[in-house]
Amino acid sequence: MKKAELINQIVTKKSLLTIGLDTDLNKLPIGIEKSWKGVVEFNKRIIETTEPYAVAYKINTAFYEWGGVAGWDALEKTLQLLPSNVLKIADAKRGDIGNTSDMYAKTFFETFDFDAVTVAPYMGYDSIKPFTDYTDKWTIVLGLTSNAGAYDYQKLKTEDGKYLFETVIEKAAKLGTENNMMFVVGATQSDYLQIVREIIPNHFLLVPGIGSQGGDLQAILATGLNQDYGLLINSSRQILYASIDENFAETAMDEAKKVQEQMAKLLI
Amino acid sequence: MKKAELINQIVTKKSLLTIGLDTDLNKLPIGIEKSWKGVVEFNKRIIETTEPYAVAYKINTAFYEWGGVAGWDALEKTLQLLPSNVLKIADAKRGDIGNTSDMYAKTFFETFDFDAVTVAPYMGYDSIKPFTDYTDKWTIVLGLTSNAGAYDYQKLKTEDGKYLFETVIEKAAKLGTENNMMFVVGATQSDYLQIVREIIPNHFLLVPGIGSQGGDLQAILATGLNQDYGLLINSSRQILYASIDENFAETAMDEAKKVQEQMAKLLI
Repeated sequence: MKKAELINQIVTKKSLLTIGLDTDLNKLPIGIEKSWKGVVEFNKRIIETTEPYAVAYKINTAFYEWGGVAGWDALEKTLQLLPSNVLKIADAKRGDIGNTSDMYAKTFFETFDFDAVTVAPYMGYDSIKPFTDYTDKWTIVLGLTSNAGAYDYQKLKTEDGKYLFETVIEKAAKLGTENNMMFVVGATQSDYLQIVREIIPNHFLLVPGIGSQGGDLQAILATGLNQDYGLLINSSRQILYASIDENFAETAMDEAKKVQEQMAKLLI
Repeated sequence: MKKAELINQIVTKKSLLTIGLDTDLNKLPIGIEKSWKGVVEFNKRIIETTEPYAVAYKINTAFYEWGGVAGWDALEKTLQLLPSNVLKIADAKRGDIGNTSDMYAKTFFETFDFDAVTVAPYMGYDSIKPFTDYTDKWTIVLGLTSNAGAYDYQKLKTEDGKYLFETVIEKAAKLGTENNMMFVVGATQSDYLQIVREIIPNHFLLVPGIGSQGGDLQAILATGLNQDYGLLINSSRQILYASIDENFAETAMDEAKKVQEQMAKLLI
């Protein structure tokens, strides 16, 4: 999905909402079989009810991988359920030496026809380049993540006085363009978002951490929006597990609608 | 596999050799069907002939993942082919926020019964801890990798005058013990190995980059060995693709034997 099409979806739906399909087989609601078939059925109903409010869906590979072959089959079936007008993100956080990253890029961009994949930067340029070589896909590099562990390394100051995450974003941004790269910046990091926007004013940011992790939507939009909107705001657990009753899909829809309406107000 | 057993294997085989099963379906030798069945058959013959010379095998998940369900099936079958007296490493370089890393740890330590998995550190302690919570398994954290991109971030100096990789190793080492953690240090980084050994004198290091990537075996052993041996030296392409003829398995064996004999001399 190209940037113009993504922006068009944002305008049409008045939404930046990305729904994370971190579907936990062991937390499926009443009325859904606790199996991989059940996971796909659950995802199908979530997608059907929330689709009017979301511009992107993010499939977290970990929640499928632990099922081995059956889990990957469920991931593939879930991907096929996604409508063509949403951005399809593989949240895989892959990254390795060049010839191995080639294989990961091939996995998510060819074997599975995702529009985007998240990439871990620690191994440097040759771990990222095989992804950005796909100019019609999106490489989403971890910049500043939403978790407590982000303080361990990402916020270390390097000898030039910058935070590590600044250098990561600066260098990685050179490996692609605003049309095929995004960066992860956690919603819990709104104090640092200004710094990120100074480095990459025009890129899209994928922002996890709203909801369960406590990020503040208003603060993020105030600092993060740009002329292309430039933000995808992810919510996973808050929407997926809004209810464990049989009406889970409708409750998830209500929750997605609520978040979308908050966004619509802030997008005016 | 516990440390004592690993050391016992090193003593018995006079070897530190880890063979990387980065098996590329498109590079299978003559006489092997170019299919996922062929990948498993190739791995079977490589394992059979090289097993006397190797103490560990490392399955690079990327080379299987791109096959989707069929690829993961081949990965599972390959894992089952490994004998019980070798360390079974998943080279997956995973890492995410806590509840997601939980799932990755479950994938490699429970769904698949690997002894060890490689983990990317950028997201900090809560991305690593779910792995090290498995005290009877090995978490292998990326310290200083063998690729050119290692210069981008790992070798940045932080304001305390240390390299980033030093802080990564120092902090991460606190999340486990010498009995359930190892670190990746590339063979191309022998100049920096002394620094690593000052921080973690007693841990095992997984050392890729011998062979195709040009690392120097003698230099690595001179600096890296400790009272437990403390090194696993990986070779992938140099052994796997020693020949593309029908005699590939015997040629791979010769290559593995040659590396093992070099190691045996240096271990005296």
